Amino acid sequence: LITDTTTATDLYVQIQRFYAAQIHLLDDVRADDFAATFTEDGEFSYDASRPTARGRSAIAQAVIGYNERFRDDPVQRRHWLGMIDFRHQEDGTIHTTFYALVLTTRKEKTPLIGPSCVTRDVLILDQDGRLYTRSRIVEHDHE
Amino acid sequence: LITDTTTATDLYVQIQRFYAAQIHLLDDVRADDFAATFTEDGEFSYDASRPTARGRSAIAQAVIGYNERFRDDPVQRRHWLGMIDFRHQEDGTIHTTFYALVLTTRKEKTPLIGPSCVTRDVLILDQDGRLYTRSRIVEHDHE
Amino acid sequence: LITDTTTATDLYVQIQRFYAAQIHLLDDVRADDFAATFTEDGEFSYDASRPTARGRSAIAQAVIGYNERFRDDPVQRRHWLGMIDFRHQEDGTIHTTFYALVLTTRKEKTPLIGPSCVTRDVLILDQDGRLYTRSRIVEHDHE
Repeated sequence: LITDTTTATDLYVQIQRFYAAQIHLLDDVRADDFAATFTEDGEFSYDASRPTARGRSAIAQAVIGYNERFRDDPVQRRHWLGMIDFRHQEDGTIHTTFYALVLTTRKEKTPLIGPSCVTRDVLILDQDGRLYTRSRIVEHDHE
Repeated sequence: LITDTTTATDLYVQIQRFYAAQIHLLDDVRADDFAATFTEDGEFSYDASRPTARGRSAIAQAVIGYNERFRDDPVQRRHWLGMIDFRHQEDGTIHTTFYALVLTTRKEKTPLIGPSCVTRDVLILDQDGRLYTRSRIVEHDHE
Repeated sequence: LITDTTTATDLYVQIQRFYAAQIHLLDDVRADDFAATFTEDGEFSYDASRPTARGRSAIAQAVIGYNERFRDDPVQRRHWLGMIDFRHQEDGTIHTTFYALVLTTRKEKTPLIGPSCVTRDVLILDQDGRLYTRSRIVEHDHE
């Protein structure tokens, strides 16, 4: 458990940097690199109507599959994550809750906004002190 | 006054975490818990056309009163705070200025955006090093 | 190079605070103060269809020139920066990549959203440890 203020500061900043790097990979549709930010047995539940993706290969495939719809309709998506809250758990995992907002830009200056989501992650630190997402559950505000 | 870099870092991160936790309470409409993030004599001026809420009970009541409009029109609101600037004052208080954007989602994937606001807080640290909002003034960009 | 975790934490937070302060100056249209957050020989490439502004005077002039369009059409613009990634380079510079979203509010509660951008900065620390933007390239998602 983190009791020292400085350590909590380091961890919070590390989480912010982890999410920034992870989301750049997602928005660049680097599916394998994005999947590699999850643990080997990571779980990604991004849509209540679809099965949870389990393992890096399934997670990468979910990203590729989702982006199929843009094959003949090029877009630039941007995921903004914010208002990150975290709790260090007794078992050493880190539970985060944060807002996520998707922006989709085509040829117009005004992006399409939405959905607005709340996301709950379980993160782990490996022996080298690197963060990975063990599980992610995305809840859409409109559902 | 904070002169040490590490201490300024700790404080800035503590402010970010404080706002994340505070805003989750607001968006979950946990009015009493949200009010408890203000000092006992806290002041909350959230709309130029309404009187300032003074004290935790009045702040909780303001949140409940505002949400009355959604009683038969369920929504999920999300407040995003960003671009947080802070100044430690000679008297020990912390003055913050930050942007706030409200997103309101009903059954559609596209949330309603706005208002866009700038917010000015006076924060204090109590003897245990916990942050509280002593006063908050929200200015709407469209007014 | 920054290898120490605490130092990386300090730097990331310093970058966040630098951007918050810089963007408040931009949105307050304090053109000279905004330009002063760039190095003397700073470069600001904010629109692929316009020449890069080189030097503080040209950067201030670019801000003033851009805002001419709002002379008889008062607006409040807000730039949100987020998902900041940074890399410390061998030469001592800091390369950042971040998302930027512009919100423009007139008399309506709903702001105009866009453009959505990705921005790449080269930052430097001066001898007193203060950050400056040496160069900035803004890429609009819709172009």
